[in-house]
Amino acid sequence: MNNTSIVLASRPKGMPTAEQFRFVTAEAPTAQAGQVLLKTLYVSVDPYMRGRMNEGKSYVPPFAVGEALNGGVVAEVVESQHEQYPVGTAVVGHLEWREYNVSDGRGLQAIPTDAAPLSYFLGLLGMPGLTAYFGLLDICRPQPGETVVVSGAAGAVGTVVGQLAKLHGARVVGTAGSDEKVVYLKEQLGFDEAINYKTAPDIKRAIAAACPSGVDCYFDNVGGPISDAVYGLLNKHARIALCGQISSYNATETPVGPRPEVKLLQSSALMKGFIVSDYAARNPEGIQALLTWYKEGKLQFEETVVDGFEQIPNAFLGLFRGENTGKQLVRVAEYSGQR
Amino acid sequence: MNNTSIVLASRPKGMPTAEQFRFVTAEAPTAQAGQVLLKTLYVSVDPYMRGRMNEGKSYVPPFAVGEALNGGVVAEVVESQHEQYPVGTAVVGHLEWREYNVSDGRGLQAIPTDAAPLSYFLGLLGMPGLTAYFGLLDICRPQPGETVVVSGAAGAVGTVVGQLAKLHGARVVGTAGSDEKVVYLKEQLGFDEAINYKTAPDIKRAIAAACPSGVDCYFDNVGGPISDAVYGLLNKHARIALCGQISSYNATETPVGPRPEVKLLQSSALMKGFIVSDYAARNPEGIQALLTWYKEGKLQFEETVVDGFEQIPNAFLGLFRGENTGKQLVRVAEYSGQR
Repeated sequence: MNNTSIVLASRPKGMPTAEQFRFVTAEAPTAQAGQVLLKTLYVSVDPYMRGRMNEGKSYVPPFAVGEALNGGVVAEVVESQHEQYPVGTAVVGHLEWREYNVSDGRGLQAIPTDAAPLSYFLGLLGMPGLTAYFGLLDICRPQPGETVVVSGAAGAVGTVVGQLAKLHGARVVGTAGSDEKVVYLKEQLGFDEAINYKTAPDIKRAIAAACPSGVDCYFDNVGGPISDAVYGLLNKHARIALCGQISSYNATETPVGPRPEVKLLQSSALMKGFIVSDYAARNPEGIQALLTWYKEGKLQFEETVVDGFEQIPNAFLGLFRGENTGKQLVRVAEYSGQR
Repeated sequence: MNNTSIVLASRPKGMPTAEQFRFVTAEAPTAQAGQVLLKTLYVSVDPYMRGRMNEGKSYVPPFAVGEALNGGVVAEVVESQHEQYPVGTAVVGHLEWREYNVSDGRGLQAIPTDAAPLSYFLGLLGMPGLTAYFGLLDICRPQPGETVVVSGAAGAVGTVVGQLAKLHGARVVGTAGSDEKVVYLKEQLGFDEAINYKTAPDIKRAIAAACPSGVDCYFDNVGGPISDAVYGLLNKHARIALCGQISSYNATETPVGPRPEVKLLQSSALMKGFIVSDYAARNPEGIQALLTWYKEGKLQFEETVVDGFEQIPNAFLGLFRGENTGKQLVRVAEYSGQR
């Protein structure tokens, strides 16, 4: 049985291209004592992975050149010599970009096959949903009637942030990169305002017009000129959750912009960077809350799914072209459930 | 009896000069029913006042052109028709820059004449001391063994911040603008390291060398390149208190610099702007704590005092030339204590 993997061929300078990825095919491994063989079902591609393609510290250690890339994967146990994970178990974990992975079970989490679509454990009930949950509720702490701005609003994190802010009684304004996304945010997810930052003639004015009472909370996935516009509108004691800075991930030098410190000073505002693993101890609470709201019909979750293991690099690159609405996934195989 | 006042003659563009201040002499008022006449003893000049010379919102409403400037003043009651403030009472309050002010008592605080020098109620036991106390202990929260960097370390706020951080077991690194200040911080106040940012050939390297274990807390009075250097050294979960940005107060356009957001993101750091009035409800706690440490000999406080009401504008302008060590004050008259 063949096993294709994707390795980092070279480190990108600026925007990555297909050349950074190399497909390698070898014989599939088998499960030894204490191990399982996992068949990849869904692979998550995420903006944060761009940082890991560089040398040096980012959120997490860098990918190694010549080694398989890795990230969030939903898989099915197809061979088992591990009591806890019998054949047919669906799992989520941090795995390599291979059609088949061998694991000793460390870091794997068995997931129910009837609670929600399995892929949701890479989205609403996984890293992006938990990122939205902790960043919004622990750092921004929106109060009823407050104005919440979320950048990258149509992405996997942003769509959850906006809906959670609405659930907490806030007025929600999102920025996104296409008219289709703007319509989706307003009509499907109930955002009060949404702005296409690519076509707005003046992003500063557009955000100011959408926030007539100023900004109390800002959940930032993007950075750059959108943030500069928001910083000018901060109300006293505003809270900013720094979740991502996708606008700068492909920059080759530190981007320069207007210094935000005086704005934060004038409004006694808080700005806090975070990564979902800061809250790892509270993951069960977050998953439970998100699952409950989902089952009650209070949270929707959109996925952009492409089919085929060979599509992974392109799906990743598409993140930086803004091609996804909600969570970008690659479906590699269907869950069989065979025991 | 004559009463000289200082009014704002015009709004400065960039660095203010003596031309922005006009001296006006009129007949001194007298205390009416429910009022006191206050003789000015000490006038506080503070960097934040620069923001109030501009139009538009800063921390506090702007000064009005043609009106007397105002700020922290220690005064003595020389006429009284107010039960609470008999003649001879020493008070601190927000008063106009006049040799004599009339007050109905609102916002005045009687101060003891035997606890500490009266001028300390504009320094260690006043706005600067409380700013240091709340910003450091509520936002930075230094832990034993952590590294605390304070910019503007030789100023009224910075000297207290550094000593409080040492009292809490931290390693303290300060930046200041002269070799005399550097010596003072290390030899007099016990800072572990101090850097003359004006003569350091490479401020980034100098701060990095002084912080071999990275930076856990940053108390920022200055902003600009010193901050850029510190942002590159942040440890995981670092805390930054934004207290002032004196490097940009005289800028005519928003200063531009490397964006700090990615650094905050990579270290899950917190940055929080504040103003001492955010903590007004806790002032008694702060004054009590500072006074106790002072009486125990654990806190020193330096003042740079010039004599004469006519010296006020020059003392204020000197703040931006870095002329003061500790608190810059103008002594207008001695306390008489006559009842």
